[in-house]
Amino acid sequence: MNSKQEMLTYIKENISKYQDDLMELIKIPSVSTDPDFANDVKKAAKWLKSYLEDLDFTATVYETPKHPIVVAESNDVDSAEACKTILIYGHYDVQPSDPDELWETPPFTPTIIGSQMFARGASDMKGQFIATAAAAAAFRKFYPGQIKIKFILEGEEESGSPSLKQFLIDHKDLLQADLALNPDAGMIAKSIPAITLGLRGMVDLELTVSGPDHDLHSGSYGGVIDNPIHVLSTLIDKLHNKDGKIAIPGFYDNVLDLSVEERESINKNPTNEKIILFQTGAPNLWGETGYTVPERTGIRPSLSVNGMYGGYTGEGSKTIIPASATAKITIRLVKNQQPQRIYQLFQEFIDHNIPDTVTWNIEYRSGAKAAKTNPQHLSNKSLVKAISEIWNIEPIYKMEGGSIPVVNQMEDILGVESILTGFGLADDRIHSPNEKLDLECWAMGIEAFALFFVYYCEQK
Amino acid sequence: MNSKQEMLTYIKENISKYQDDLMELIKIPSVSTDPDFANDVKKAAKWLKSYLEDLDFTATVYETPKHPIVVAESNDVDSAEACKTILIYGHYDVQPSDPDELWETPPFTPTIIGSQMFARGASDMKGQFIATAAAAAAFRKFYPGQIKIKFILEGEEESGSPSLKQFLIDHKDLLQADLALNPDAGMIAKSIPAITLGLRGMVDLELTVSGPDHDLHSGSYGGVIDNPIHVLSTLIDKLHNKDGKIAIPGFYDNVLDLSVEERESINKNPTNEKIILFQTGAPNLWGETGYTVPERTGIRPSLSVNGMYGGYTGEGSKTIIPASATAKITIRLVKNQQPQRIYQLFQEFIDHNIPDTVTWNIEYRSGAKAAKTNPQHLSNKSLVKAISEIWNIEPIYKMEGGSIPVVNQMEDILGVESILTGFGLADDRIHSPNEKLDLECWAMGIEAFALFFVYYCEQK
Repeated sequence: MNSKQEMLTYIKENISKYQDDLMELIKIPSVSTDPDFANDVKKAAKWLKSYLEDLDFTATVYETPKHPIVVAESNDVDSAEACKTILIYGHYDVQPSDPDELWETPPFTPTIIGSQMFARGASDMKGQFIATAAAAAAFRKFYPGQIKIKFILEGEEESGSPSLKQFLIDHKDLLQADLALNPDAGMIAKSIPAITLGLRGMVDLELTVSGPDHDLHSGSYGGVIDNPIHVLSTLIDKLHNKDGKIAIPGFYDNVLDLSVEERESINKNPTNEKIILFQTGAPNLWGETGYTVPERTGIRPSLSVNGMYGGYTGEGSKTIIPASATAKITIRLVKNQQPQRIYQLFQEFIDHNIPDTVTWNIEYRSGAKAAKTNPQHLSNKSLVKAISEIWNIEPIYKMEGGSIPVVNQMEDILGVESILTGFGLADDRIHSPNEKLDLECWAMGIEAFALFFVYYCEQK
Repeated sequence: MNSKQEMLTYIKENISKYQDDLMELIKIPSVSTDPDFANDVKKAAKWLKSYLEDLDFTATVYETPKHPIVVAESNDVDSAEACKTILIYGHYDVQPSDPDELWETPPFTPTIIGSQMFARGASDMKGQFIATAAAAAAFRKFYPGQIKIKFILEGEEESGSPSLKQFLIDHKDLLQADLALNPDAGMIAKSIPAITLGLRGMVDLELTVSGPDHDLHSGSYGGVIDNPIHVLSTLIDKLHNKDGKIAIPGFYDNVLDLSVEERESINKNPTNEKIILFQTGAPNLWGETGYTVPERTGIRPSLSVNGMYGGYTGEGSKTIIPASATAKITIRLVKNQQPQRIYQLFQEFIDHNIPDTVTWNIEYRSGAKAAKTNPQHLSNKSLVKAISEIWNIEPIYKMEGGSIPVVNQMEDILGVESILTGFGLADDRIHSPNEKLDLECWAMGIEAFALFFVYYCEQK
């Protein structure tokens, strides 16, 4: 029996211990948004330190203005001697459990039914963290002194990671690595593992159109004063062409076209029309002509009005022409689109299309570039090989429509590229009552992570 | 000295008594919307009964499901013998006084400064009611046994007149008249008296567009699922053509074209672009090409989205594609447009223009036809003559952009046409803090009402 087989056997033999560790961590209700749980978040950070120390890592709890960040590293090898240094990202905070009455088992008492473990944080992402830590420990047992493994574990992901960016800036050297492993992405289905190849970026804007300086009587002024809701509606209408493309001139100028191979790979994602309609309940799909479903959300930008309001929005009616109307807009960017440039084009578009019957204002809330990793990168190839071996099927390359800011921050601040995967499932109900973790997927995931370390080092 | 001159002199001599009566009525805070004031509304109704009895009317307080309606009639002449029967409409309830801290004098303690009386209800419309009652009493003193004068005074106008319609149906005979005098309309300026010739009607609708069955993550689904806010915006945009016309096919089919004379008369209204911009604070005017400012609000229909909402409307941002979006819409109608027909055309328009990526629903809240009186009508001519004599200038015919449902109800239920005037001013701040009444206008108004009764009877 070679080391690899011994390592996988060792993991199988220890799976109930890993499960016990996970359950211990889950029992600490580390809800980051609710100040009532601040002590539990602290307690979870301490638990992580002690847990990682037991696995022979040195671990430190760093205080931040809000919740602690835990950093750990393996000491069996210096970075200089290691084949590679990997920085594993994780967050140990969880979403609130409410509405509690909809839980069928207590949210912070992990309950195993069949092969599912029900609890808040089981899938997002205490389970994913324990999987990487268990895999790292098993790998080091059978391949000592090869990879330097570091962890950075934040307690604020579910409340927007306010402290993370500054922490990365302040601890650049401590966090140096060849690669970041981010296990906060998920699978497509139980039999379809995935590697997330890219995330869309985002521009977050608020557009306000103002007309009269107070709400007017719509009888007295209807027909002679323009209505900010009408003007805003026309602008929103103009933002898209009939073919589903965004109509802002220059918007697509820097959009990166993917290679035929990449498009083929992305289109192996079986998330088709039927599945999307089932997931959303919408009557029909919509989108940019010439692109498939996975392409539309993965490699093409999109623009959504996330909220709009103006005038009277209470019960019944109030006959007014409102003084203003507002739209909250996010634009999802793809690789090579610059948030600031897109913001500028958006401003020019509004300026060019707005009539002189109103005034306007745009608030730029935030911007983030898209992230995309190269599928030819050796870390990806190692991960493909590891996952394929455990699942007996090649993982699918997935482009995620959403944004994970830490991926960009690690690239921009630390200069470290991330590889994204994870063994949660689409039906894990993360952020909702009855969150669960599929323990079979999870156990396979631990083996896959451990194998990945092996192959990543071999391929150096 | 003839009776007419004696009557006008009598009014001048008694003006401080009329003022005292008005102040007594104002001191009763008859706020109809706030249940805390229900007893005050009752008290005001009793006060009216006793006041009208003192003026030699028989008066009855009728209970309704909410606030009482007071009906009074003069008994010096039978309807059969009178030259005419006039039904005077009034409401004795007032708007709430809040925000109280913005009042410079106590809202329910009438305070005279110069020629202005400051108090809630002074202009809208306790002052207008006392003016008609004082005029009626003076007229009857010098022209006894000529006109049968009736009053209907409601206590719910500021809360939507929920009891009035049924009361009219139940008391048709009691309220029979040749003409209704509605003094709830106002002047254009202190030197420019006005007769309101018409009011626009209204269709009140709520349009909801629904897409997915729950709010979706705009990252995961942005680009493949249509956004109800986008669809609703496109529909709102389509409702108007570039020339400011409403784009619903058939919408203008029954719109009544006014005669050259009527348009000329309406355009004597000096409310021009400058005045509207000053009143509203809007940067520029807007509207249907080919029509003047008074025409756009008076004789042309208009459509306003009074309120719109969809998705996240709180602080900051939330990256969702919302499940639905809603627009509250009122359409102002002109003479001959049928609310039900317009509603049907609106539905057909939405049905024809909406994509299959969403579903839709329209709630029809209410509808009211436009009201328009004939300027050649003898009651109008009498009122013109009376006002001209007191002001030394002919009143301007005004088309009011708003709707006064009681005018239609009286026409439809009682078969009685209304004549609309009043001696309030545009800057009386009705519904706002520091409401006031110009006592000079008001005193002239009492004389004009009394003269109107004289001429109306003479012209029989």
